[in-house]
Amino acid sequence: MNTRLERFRVITDCKKFKKVFDLDDPRSKGLPNGMIKSEELDNIQMGDSFSLGSKKYLVLPCSLQDYIMEYMERKTQIIYPKDAGYITLNLDLAPGQKVGEAGTGSGALTAIFSRAVGPEGLVYTYERRPDFADMILRNLEGCQAYDNILFHNQALEKEELPEGLDAFFLDMKSPWEILPQVDQALKPGGRIGFLLPTTNQVTRIISILQSSGYFIQEVAEILRRGYKPNPERLRPQDVMTAHTGYLIFACRLKKRKEEE
Amino acid sequence: MNTRLERFRVITDCKKFKKVFDLDDPRSKGLPNGMIKSEELDNIQMGDSFSLGSKKYLVLPCSLQDYIMEYMERKTQIIYPKDAGYITLNLDLAPGQKVGEAGTGSGALTAIFSRAVGPEGLVYTYERRPDFADMILRNLEGCQAYDNILFHNQALEKEELPEGLDAFFLDMKSPWEILPQVDQALKPGGRIGFLLPTTNQVTRIISILQSSGYFIQEVAEILRRGYKPNPERLRPQDVMTAHTGYLIFACRLKKRKEEE
Amino acid sequence: MNTRLERFRVITDCKKFKKVFDLDDPRSKGLPNGMIKSEELDNIQMGDSFSLGSKKYLVLPCSLQDYIMEYMERKTQIIYPKDAGYITLNLDLAPGQKVGEAGTGSGALTAIFSRAVGPEGLVYTYERRPDFADMILRNLEGCQAYDNILFHNQALEKEELPEGLDAFFLDMKSPWEILPQVDQALKPGGRIGFLLPTTNQVTRIISILQSSGYFIQEVAEILRRGYKPNPERLRPQDVMTAHTGYLIFACRLKKRKEEE
Amino acid sequence: MNTRLERFRVITDCKKFKKVFDLDDPRSKGLPNGMIKSEELDNIQMGDSFSLGSKKYLVLPCSLQDYIMEYMERKTQIIYPKDAGYITLNLDLAPGQKVGEAGTGSGALTAIFSRAVGPEGLVYTYERRPDFADMILRNLEGCQAYDNILFHNQALEKEELPEGLDAFFLDMKSPWEILPQVDQALKPGGRIGFLLPTTNQVTRIISILQSSGYFIQEVAEILRRGYKPNPERLRPQDVMTAHTGYLIFACRLKKRKEEE
Repeated sequence: MNTRLERFRVITDCKKFKKVFDLDDPRSKGLPNGMIKSEELDNIQMGDSFSLGSKKYLVLPCSLQDYIMEYMERKTQIIYPKDAGYITLNLDLAPGQKVGEAGTGSGALTAIFSRAVGPEGLVYTYERRPDFADMILRNLEGCQAYDNILFHNQALEKEELPEGLDAFFLDMKSPWEILPQVDQALKPGGRIGFLLPTTNQVTRIISILQSSGYFIQEVAEILRRGYKPNPERLRPQDVMTAHTGYLIFACRLKKRKEEE
Repeated sequence: MNTRLERFRVITDCKKFKKVFDLDDPRSKGLPNGMIKSEELDNIQMGDSFSLGSKKYLVLPCSLQDYIMEYMERKTQIIYPKDAGYITLNLDLAPGQKVGEAGTGSGALTAIFSRAVGPEGLVYTYERRPDFADMILRNLEGCQAYDNILFHNQALEKEELPEGLDAFFLDMKSPWEILPQVDQALKPGGRIGFLLPTTNQVTRIISILQSSGYFIQEVAEILRRGYKPNPERLRPQDVMTAHTGYLIFACRLKKRKEEE
Repeated sequence: MNTRLERFRVITDCKKFKKVFDLDDPRSKGLPNGMIKSEELDNIQMGDSFSLGSKKYLVLPCSLQDYIMEYMERKTQIIYPKDAGYITLNLDLAPGQKVGEAGTGSGALTAIFSRAVGPEGLVYTYERRPDFADMILRNLEGCQAYDNILFHNQALEKEELPEGLDAFFLDMKSPWEILPQVDQALKPGGRIGFLLPTTNQVTRIISILQSSGYFIQEVAEILRRGYKPNPERLRPQDVMTAHTGYLIFACRLKKRKEEE
Repeated sequence: MNTRLERFRVITDCKKFKKVFDLDDPRSKGLPNGMIKSEELDNIQMGDSFSLGSKKYLVLPCSLQDYIMEYMERKTQIIYPKDAGYITLNLDLAPGQKVGEAGTGSGALTAIFSRAVGPEGLVYTYERRPDFADMILRNLEGCQAYDNILFHNQALEKEELPEGLDAFFLDMKSPWEILPQVDQALKPGGRIGFLLPTTNQVTRIISILQSSGYFIQEVAEILRRGYKPNPERLRPQDVMTAHTGYLIFACRLKKRKEEE
């Protein structure tokens, strides 16, 4: 189908922002270690190709999304690109802002937030599970462009959160447990978002938000349907991810203590 | 349903990044001019409320997305948030990059790109229709945070595009017509994206990309399904946007002239 | 677009199983009364056309689905074709069977059930609202092919339901209220189905079914996405019905009294 | 979760319309042969259970859909229930009608058509591949309730089709090749339907239908999204079938020879 490219394999080296994967076996995570020397790879220009035995390989840049989907270690479900782009827009993140996140998970959304707030911004991220710390640090080290992530490996309940955050995102089983802490951290008018997999969690958080000084902006789900890129036989892929989670976004009203 | 808030109306003044809309009439675009003086609105804190006659109003910040969806003038279909977030991620935009766009349309995606590349980046945007210029400038003036947008009100065919662009997005009827110019502008390994409403356009651009030195990364569509935020009666909204366009993303291989 | 037909209007007379609608104004419900005499319409063959003033009209048969969607009066949401076909299959309806339904609503699903069980089958349908009776009888009179519908305009709680029903479908707000009556009517192994619009209702009925002697077969939703039939510009329609209801299907286990 | 049933396995014997499957291993196709004698199974009432070793099994009726999805042999993709129910409604099939089908494939839709037209109706089905014949006959034998299927193991091009068919469904790669034969068979006003997996096929058949005396009624796709039936954690299943095929329905205008 892809006539000019079918004899190629594709290569990425994330550390160098080059991507390596095998067109004949798209599930392979790239070229086996040692098959090409790191210095040789450095000399190959982006978009160029080289031969190795009977095969040809293509060298492409590794995007942040490639890195997250193909290279990050995972102990739990990560936030998918279809959701991550929508979350960033709905939290209204911009360069220079301060955003909070709990839990960190594998660090996928942390990396996207780090890029969205840029070198002048800050990402405060909290993960309570001690066994996640090393994985998170490795994952972030491989893609972090700015020194703007403050990782806390502690339960948020016991934390003193910074004040005046522009936005906060909660991807955890019982987000209502730490809502009082987040309330204190979020500036008036600040945005809060949630990803929750079950409708039971959605009804619970909506009910709590409505009685806790939030204006609910939207509850939505984002679906991505991929197509097979064959111009003679264009059609959707046979299966798709049917569900990651429901997204809930709300706005913080004036702080309660000021209301009194 | 939203018991604490049902007596409120919501207010935004985008110029001041405050949002005004009427909860009782969600289609209204806000408080009529002159009903509250601009200085009075300035004194109301984000997340706070005020009374006007028998009604209460709520003051919330206006996000970039609110501005695009509620305040931007439109002469054509704009790029929706569900697509815009995904496009930004797939083009791998980051602070400091240079990205191109054609056509500008109403400027919705231009504004999102401006934010994504930040104060150190640049957005080159091209719109050939002369009658769009004033609207685009008004729309961008109302939301632009950085002086990083270079707007060209000319047909791209006759333009000398800048070289070394990191990414390019084409939202136009016949994107293949300007592909040679974009080829020259895009750096090797650079990302190109398209939004196309019909399958006929998709098969055509895929076929052209495959024979023009691009590696197709994905063809996909993004669907957003909204829910009514009622904790006692959670359910999807009755209707949804079923289609905006197919998204196609590809990577530029080594430049052709270098291949010779 | 539809070049051979664009000068035509389409006509249906459901009473005569002919369909009349106006291609130039697809929302019109057909030819105004009196514009063509009934006897003249009788003489026009299916698939044939005739002229009236400067316009040409096309005569097509009216399907049961056309009748339901275009001609039935509605006081509430009807069951859509996308759901009705799936319900019929999942209840495993076949000629000669006995099926129950509550409530009748507008009678759309009643008509489809009547056809599925055929002249040897029976449809027992229950609607408690007295003001629905006339509409239901008119709606069914216009499309009923067999004398197999037993309509009861009574609250099901007070009814003595027939025993040995093969299947039962409940499209009502609080289906759990009449579940004990349905239990008695349904044969062991018989199938029960529900359409419920909210997730709160779904979790409630699932929980009740699991503790009341049912084996849950599936919970699903069916979505229909229409396309504009233009071969040069194939694309989905702009908007779609995003939600009608969740479908729940279960199998009745051995009757409780026999368990003792 | 399913507390009353979690210790059960479920059993079906399709030949006897009883279903056997293993709740602990939902992918198993039922109880291994010989584990329970056929006569013993006959004595167990529908909805009842029995013990075998340390395990309990549940006996449920096998629906036509269960039979199609779990027991039919397949050499190609079968038509799924989500599509089959919608096709039956859109072809406006009713007891006593005559319907055609090409190709037969595995016979799944044939079995559903057989039921829809009932004992007084007829299904003419055509499959050109000689190696499909035995499988089709076995598949239909296991579920056929009426003697109303006329199976032809021949290429339709060479066949003399019956005239006056009410409807015809084409599920084949190049349906345009046999459209002239179908034209002759279909009565004026008769309905034709297609399932086609690619957009290229859809644009081609639409274009041909529009210039061949058909009125296109709709182009649509049907999506089914399943949910995990857990009342404490209601959520969609993780993956879903994203695509089977596009459905196209049209109405036959007056026969061409009569137009002259």
